[in-house]
Amino acid sequence: MSSARINGERLQRRIAALAEVGAIDGGGCARLALSDADRAGRDLVCGWMRELGLAVTVDAIGNVVGLRAGRVDGPAVMTGSHIDTVRTGGRFDGNYGVLAGLEVVAALNEGGLSTEHPLAVAFFTNEEGARFAPDMLGSLVYTGGLALDAALATTGIDGASVGAELARIGYAGPAPVPAAAPRAFVELHVEQGPVLDREGLDIGVVESVQGISWTEIEIRGTSNHAGTTPMALRRDAGWAAGSIINFVRELAQELGGDQVATVGRIEFFPNLVNVVPNRAVLTVDLRNTDEERLRIAEARLAAHLDALRDAEKVEISTRKLARFAPVRFDPAMCDRIETHARALGLATRRMPSGAGHDAQMLAAVCPTAMIFVPSVDGISHNVREYTHARHIEAGAQVLLAVLTELAGGTQPAGEHP
Amino acid sequence: MSSARINGERLQRRIAALAEVGAIDGGGCARLALSDADRAGRDLVCGWMRELGLAVTVDAIGNVVGLRAGRVDGPAVMTGSHIDTVRTGGRFDGNYGVLAGLEVVAALNEGGLSTEHPLAVAFFTNEEGARFAPDMLGSLVYTGGLALDAALATTGIDGASVGAELARIGYAGPAPVPAAAPRAFVELHVEQGPVLDREGLDIGVVESVQGISWTEIEIRGTSNHAGTTPMALRRDAGWAAGSIINFVRELAQELGGDQVATVGRIEFFPNLVNVVPNRAVLTVDLRNTDEERLRIAEARLAAHLDALRDAEKVEISTRKLARFAPVRFDPAMCDRIETHARALGLATRRMPSGAGHDAQMLAAVCPTAMIFVPSVDGISHNVREYTHARHIEAGAQVLLAVLTELAGGTQPAGEHP
Repeated sequence: MSSARINGERLQRRIAALAEVGAIDGGGCARLALSDADRAGRDLVCGWMRELGLAVTVDAIGNVVGLRAGRVDGPAVMTGSHIDTVRTGGRFDGNYGVLAGLEVVAALNEGGLSTEHPLAVAFFTNEEGARFAPDMLGSLVYTGGLALDAALATTGIDGASVGAELARIGYAGPAPVPAAAPRAFVELHVEQGPVLDREGLDIGVVESVQGISWTEIEIRGTSNHAGTTPMALRRDAGWAAGSIINFVRELAQELGGDQVATVGRIEFFPNLVNVVPNRAVLTVDLRNTDEERLRIAEARLAAHLDALRDAEKVEISTRKLARFAPVRFDPAMCDRIETHARALGLATRRMPSGAGHDAQMLAAVCPTAMIFVPSVDGISHNVREYTHARHIEAGAQVLLAVLTELAGGTQPAGEHP
Repeated sequence: MSSARINGERLQRRIAALAEVGAIDGGGCARLALSDADRAGRDLVCGWMRELGLAVTVDAIGNVVGLRAGRVDGPAVMTGSHIDTVRTGGRFDGNYGVLAGLEVVAALNEGGLSTEHPLAVAFFTNEEGARFAPDMLGSLVYTGGLALDAALATTGIDGASVGAELARIGYAGPAPVPAAAPRAFVELHVEQGPVLDREGLDIGVVESVQGISWTEIEIRGTSNHAGTTPMALRRDAGWAAGSIINFVRELAQELGGDQVATVGRIEFFPNLVNVVPNRAVLTVDLRNTDEERLRIAEARLAAHLDALRDAEKVEISTRKLARFAPVRFDPAMCDRIETHARALGLATRRMPSGAGHDAQMLAAVCPTAMIFVPSVDGISHNVREYTHARHIEAGAQVLLAVLTELAGGTQPAGEHP
């Protein structure tokens, strides 16, 4: 088999170097999609790709693919993830999967090994959705789930459009989308949740991804003096927003199971201590592995908004920011990951992903699965996100094994017939 | 008696001209205290004061007093209010009282009339508190309720300090504070509530002002991934903020009476759709005419915060932005206002003020009362704030009658002994 060996220290050096781009206090990163910091991160990773001999292409939505030729032509076995972050992101989320892909290439190069099928390492645009909705935008367009024009016209939280920002940072590339389907896709990622860490396991074999429903809710009431307006006469958009925050927590508790519900973003207008807000905008993030139960959660939220309209005499409008049904990964791919992890002496479990990932988009066009490594205390989207070095290395080893098998095994580079 | 006559159209022209400064859509104004717009408004009103022959002085906290000499020296009978606005303010709130004071001076000038005691028209700095807390800052310092140094060091919602902004706009004046007490103080103001309008009355004789308690609450939890963090493991600062919003509404309903409670300002951090907030900052505005009940409201809020700390394992800190006990105005002054209003054929009622006013600060140092005119539908702190022209004129007539009586009556200007 392969004599390629993962170099954990080299991988950690690349993770640390990328984390310097857009670094924020506490060891994390702020590289919102298509920002100047994202451009700098892209430039750094593209440079590494070229150093490793990969042929780098950029497509029309800014996805970057580094290709390592195989002994035969045809679709590549692809790995990858994203390098954009939330505003208070950690250094591992997304970045780890991309840089572990590069480490696999480095290990093959170092071993003088070729694969039968080409290998590709990709990073996709705006996975986080922290600047532009929906999240996983780049992989969605890559796999034909959203038209390019619609994606380019998307406006972010700062009013800028995807198209304008891609052009501004120089990543509106010539490669067409949707792209040809890869031969297979494997994404390596930190868990971003507490399960593997709590159970003392090394590797999660990800069988499915939760469905995601993001709704932006805008409430319009009447701004008025906070001292002179009797409670009964108020049309308080701020209070209605507070009611929604409470409701979604109760909703998650009542539905139970793995239903989660979050209000992560809110704004009041005019946002002054002594003025009843006349407008409030907030977001609701609902997730469930079961599509039917996710629909129930959405319907209950809608019913609550109806009740609020009546009770507070406010106007409420909603906008779907993202909606993805739950995804099941390829069972054979999952078996393959599990087999290789166990062969490496690693403790594994099957699990769903609570977060959305680019892999769920690729699952629509090719055999796909994901590998998780533990996140200490499950902390993510936070500068304190951390994964132990032994797990960083273990995940990359599993990735190397799975990718080389999918690519038809390795040979010394000179030995093709 | 006086042959001076209020010119309602002239008063309306000044109100309209001042409303052009910092004008916003819908006919309102945005002149946050010590902003460029506030400076422009101050310059306009100071110009009018000088045109009317008033001696203009500016004190160290930026309060402006226009003095009309009497036939004898000594403390002036003062009227006044404020010309700063909230971000979505109307054109009458505060401005009306100041400009009606100028109209009284104009009427006396036009009638060639002097008063025994001096008359003064003042406007006080940062009455609204929309930029700097506490509100009524200028009149508080004017009457010795807050040390000048502390007031100048106050930082606003944009991080700028009162002292720096006063200097920047050229209104850090030479007159000392606290100032000598006026002979008496009368403030004319729009009601900013619905009572007079609903009851079809012309004039409110304001006997008291509600106590005000403003608290800024900062909650610290843990930011985490909205998809992967089980509900039971969250330390969600945003949810805790929502719980407070709901709590203060219930608090007002349970306490009943004239208790009001408002969350007007809120911010989440990092404020992203898919991140559990690790920090939330919000304000609570509690008001009651009864000090004992206001203290009960404050204590219940504190108990709720304690319960939240336990339930969500969040850290909560609070900062008092403003705290004023309820104020009772001078009964003889109230009688005087009522008598003059009725003599002018106006329908009156006694009432408390739900809003804070500069008059409540002056009440600590001299006989003080307030005159209210109706606000249509009680709308205030809103561009749709409106008072009918007949009420604008009626209020100014009452002010003229009360001020001239307090100033010892009028005489033709040449006739002093």
